[in-house]
Amino acid sequence: VLEGRLKPGLKVPASRALATALGVARITVVTAYDMLVAEGYFVVRAGAGTFVAEAPLARAATPTLRLEAPAQPAFSKLARPSIGPMYGSPPPRPVIDFAIGLPDVRQLRFDAWNRFAARAMRLYCRRNEGYDYVEGSPRLREAIGSHVSFSRAVAANKDNIIVTAGAQQAFSLLADAFVDPGQTTVAIEDPGYPLALEAFAAAGARVVGVPIDPEGLVVESIPKEAKIIYVTPSHQFPLGVVMSRRRRAELLEFALAHDAIIVEDDYDSEFRYSGRPLDALQTMDQHQRVFYVGTYSKCLFPAARMGFVVTPHWALGALIAAKQRADWHTNLLTQETLASFIQEGFLVRHVKRMKKVYAGRRELLLSILDKDFKPWLRAIPSDAGLHLTAMTAPEFSGVDLAKSARALGIGIYEVWPSAETPSADSCVLFGYGNIEEMEIRKALGSLKRLFSSGKLSVPRQGGRIDRLGKSSFGVPSSHGDAGV
Amino acid sequence: VLEGRLKPGLKVPASRALATALGVARITVVTAYDMLVAEGYFVVRAGAGTFVAEAPLARAATPTLRLEAPAQPAFSKLARPSIGPMYGSPPPRPVIDFAIGLPDVRQLRFDAWNRFAARAMRLYCRRNEGYDYVEGSPRLREAIGSHVSFSRAVAANKDNIIVTAGAQQAFSLLADAFVDPGQTTVAIEDPGYPLALEAFAAAGARVVGVPIDPEGLVVESIPKEAKIIYVTPSHQFPLGVVMSRRRRAELLEFALAHDAIIVEDDYDSEFRYSGRPLDALQTMDQHQRVFYVGTYSKCLFPAARMGFVVTPHWALGALIAAKQRADWHTNLLTQETLASFIQEGFLVRHVKRMKKVYAGRRELLLSILDKDFKPWLRAIPSDAGLHLTAMTAPEFSGVDLAKSARALGIGIYEVWPSAETPSADSCVLFGYGNIEEMEIRKALGSLKRLFSSGKLSVPRQGGRIDRLGKSSFGVPSSHGDAGV
Repeated sequence: VLEGRLKPGLKVPASRALATALGVARITVVTAYDMLVAEGYFVVRAGAGTFVAEAPLARAATPTLRLEAPAQPAFSKLARPSIGPMYGSPPPRPVIDFAIGLPDVRQLRFDAWNRFAARAMRLYCRRNEGYDYVEGSPRLREAIGSHVSFSRAVAANKDNIIVTAGAQQAFSLLADAFVDPGQTTVAIEDPGYPLALEAFAAAGARVVGVPIDPEGLVVESIPKEAKIIYVTPSHQFPLGVVMSRRRRAELLEFALAHDAIIVEDDYDSEFRYSGRPLDALQTMDQHQRVFYVGTYSKCLFPAARMGFVVTPHWALGALIAAKQRADWHTNLLTQETLASFIQEGFLVRHVKRMKKVYAGRRELLLSILDKDFKPWLRAIPSDAGLHLTAMTAPEFSGVDLAKSARALGIGIYEVWPSAETPSADSCVLFGYGNIEEMEIRKALGSLKRLFSSGKLSVPRQGGRIDRLGKSSFGVPSSHGDAGV
Repeated sequence: VLEGRLKPGLKVPASRALATALGVARITVVTAYDMLVAEGYFVVRAGAGTFVAEAPLARAATPTLRLEAPAQPAFSKLARPSIGPMYGSPPPRPVIDFAIGLPDVRQLRFDAWNRFAARAMRLYCRRNEGYDYVEGSPRLREAIGSHVSFSRAVAANKDNIIVTAGAQQAFSLLADAFVDPGQTTVAIEDPGYPLALEAFAAAGARVVGVPIDPEGLVVESIPKEAKIIYVTPSHQFPLGVVMSRRRRAELLEFALAHDAIIVEDDYDSEFRYSGRPLDALQTMDQHQRVFYVGTYSKCLFPAARMGFVVTPHWALGALIAAKQRADWHTNLLTQETLASFIQEGFLVRHVKRMKKVYAGRRELLLSILDKDFKPWLRAIPSDAGLHLTAMTAPEFSGVDLAKSARALGIGIYEVWPSAETPSADSCVLFGYGNIEEMEIRKALGSLKRLFSSGKLSVPRQGGRIDRLGKSSFGVPSSHGDAGV
C-alpha cells in the first residue's frame, strides 16, 4: 500500500481465499486485515468486502527513509552549547580519582536506609493516595527544618522549606521563578560553580562574574543592576575561601539597597575541620532576601538527588508554582525514607563518622602538598568541605596540569572557566571525598614525578586569578576571615 | 553588642574573672568568647586582651525584627499567578473521589519493588561511584526501550531515551531546550492539560489553544508560526477522543512544512479496553519531528516520579544539557529499581492485572451514566485511559456541577479553563483509576439525587465546546477515528 503497488479502491482478496493461497490459518489473515483496517490502510464496505483505503497516507508520499539527521528546526536555544560533562561525570573515571564533590558511600548504613525505604513503599501502597505536596512531604520538611536549625542556625521549619531534586533543581527553580528573560542580571562568583551559572543563563538571565579575594565575594564589584546574587559563603566553590563576616554584612546591605535576592549555596559545610562556622547569610538576614540552598548529595550521597531551599515566606508561592511546573514533586518514597533516616539519627551519626574519615584524607593531602610540592603548588587555606584547591606556580597552567595528570590516570581538575573571564588557569582542584589515603599517596607520588620531569612547563593558556593576594603564588596567607 | 550596650573597643572582662562572677566554669566563658570572636563580635589583641569589635555590624544598625513580609523584589515573574492546586492535589480529598489520573496501587507488588530497591542501594554503596549519566541509567533506558518498542511500536532504544522525573519534567525540559522567550509560539490542545501549558508559558512561550473535534486536534487551526505542538493523540486530555489517522498525517505534514516539532504525550495508553491503538505519531514520523513522552505514573504509580522522552537524535544533546541544568539526573536508585521491575516482567503483569480492574470500573461507570443520567450527562466515547469525560446537557454548567458535587463530598472535576478560551464549561471528568465499584455506585446515586433536586439549573458561566458535533449535547456519535 505504502509503495503504491496496491492502488486505492482495490478490493483485496477474501480472507479465506488468501489464507488458502498462502497456506496459513484464516485467523492469521483476519487478524492482519483487522490491523490494516485499524491503521487506516484498508477500509471495510458493508456487504461489499475490504478495499485499499482511498485517502492516500502521508508517508506514502515520502517513502524514502531518511537515516541521516534532517535539517534541524532553527530554534535559537539549540545553538547554545551545553557545558559538557562535569566533574564526576560517568565512567570511565581516572584510575585514581580526586573526584570533586563526591562522598564515600561505603560506610553508609544502607541496611537502615533500605528498611525505611521498604516501609515507605509499603505504607504508600496501603494508603493508596494521590499526588503528594508539591513542596515536599511534611515529615521530611520537618526533619530538614530541625536539622538545619540545629546544625546551621538557619531559621527553617516545615513551612518555609521546599524539597528539591538536589541543589541543582533549587537553582533551576529560583531561575524559573525570578529571572525575567533578557531583563534580569545575575551576579555569580568568578570562578564559580558552572551548573548554577547554566541554570540562570538558560532562563534568559545576563550572568556577570564577580571576583573572589581572601574575604570571599568582592561585594563592591557586584553590578548595581544585579537582582540575583549567587554565593557559596561557607566554602567558596571552587577556591575554598570563607566569606568574611564583614563581606556578609555588606552583601546583605547590597541586596536590601538594590532590591536583590541572594542565593546562598551551602553545599558542603557539614564537614568542617576546625573552628566554628560563621553564621549563614540566612541566619544574619533580617529582610527576607536570602534563599538558603542545602543538599544531601555531600553529607549522604548524590544518587538520591535530595536537596532543599529555605525560602522567605513571600516567595513560597512562586517557588511552589515553579516546582510544580518542573516535576510536580520530588520522589515521595525517597522523601519519606530520608525523613526517617534523619529523624532516627542516622544522618548525624553518618556525618560524624565521615568527618573523621575525610579529615584524615585532608590532613594527608595537605601534608604531602606542603612537604613535596612547594616549588609547584600551594593549597588555598580552607576549613571545610570535600575538596582542596591549590594555586600553581606562575609557570604552570592549571588546565594543562590537570590534563596531563588525567593522561596518567590521575583525576585532578581544572577550575572551569566562567562565561565572563577565561581566568582561573592558576588552580587545580583535589577532591578527597571518595579517595583512599593509599591512593592519595600513590597519586601524589606520580604527580611529583610529573612535575620533576620538566614536561609541564608550558605557556599559560588563560589569565591568572590575581585577587587572592601577592604572597605564595597568590595564595592568601591566612584563612578567609582574616579581614574582620 | 548588637543593642549597642557594649561599645566598640570596650575591653571585656578576663575569662577567669567573668567565670567567677557568674559562677560558671572558666571553660564555658572561654568557649563563649571563642564563638564571639569567630563570629566577629569580639576581637583579640595579642597581649592586650579581648575587645568588642570596631566594625559595627550590619544587623546592629537595623535591630527591629520585621515579622510581616517586607516589600517584595519587583520581579515580573512573581506576578505570574500559579495555576493553583491541581487534580489529585494533596488531602483533604473528597469522601468519594473520582480523582483524575490516579491509579490504584493496592495491588502493586511492593515486595518485589522493595527487593529490587534494596539491591540497587546495596550495589550503589558497594560500587561507591559518582554521579550517574545525565540521560539516565543505561539499564533503565534499555528496559524502557524494549517496553515501548514492544507495546507501542515506538522506535526507541537506550540511545534516544532520556529518563525524566515524570512526564511533567519532560515538558519542562522540552520548554527549556526549545522555547526562545518572547519568540516561540506553542500550540496546545484546548481544552488541554494545564501543567503542560504552564511549562511552556513559564519558559516564555506564547501559548495558543487549538480546538478539538471528534477527530482530535483541528490541525488546520494551528497557527502557522507555531514551532512546538503539544498533543495527546491516544486519549485526548481531557476529552478522551482519539486523534484520527488522517489528522495524524496532517499534523506530521504541518510540522515538516512549518519547521515545527511535536510533543506527543502518551500518558495513559497502556490501558486500552477495545480495539487496537493507532500508531503513535512517533512511529509514523519519518522526519524526526516527534518527541514521545511516556510516564510510569499511570501504569505503575506517581510517587516515584518516573517518566521519559524518546527524542530525535538531533535533539539529544540539547535535552541532556537541559536535564543537567534541571536536576543533573533522576534518582539513580529508583531508576535501577524500575529497570529491574520492568526487566523481570512485573510491569507487564501489573498492567495486565490492573487493566481488568479498571475495565470493570469503566464499564460500571458507563452503564450507570447511560441508564440513569440520560437527561443530564452523556459520556464522550473513549477506549483508553483512567478517566471518562461527560458532556452536560445545555442547561448545566460543568464547573457548577463539579463544585456542587464536591460540596457533597463527591470528587468529580471540571475541565480546566485554558489561557486562551474560557470554554469547556460543558464537561465534567470522572477518574476511575482509584475508586472502588461500590463507591462508584454510591457516588452516582448521590449525583442523581443532586440532578433530580433541580438545584443545579443555573446559568452557564462560560462558553460551550461546540466542535464535538451536534448530536447528544455535542457528544460525537462514534469514536474519534470515525473520520478515516
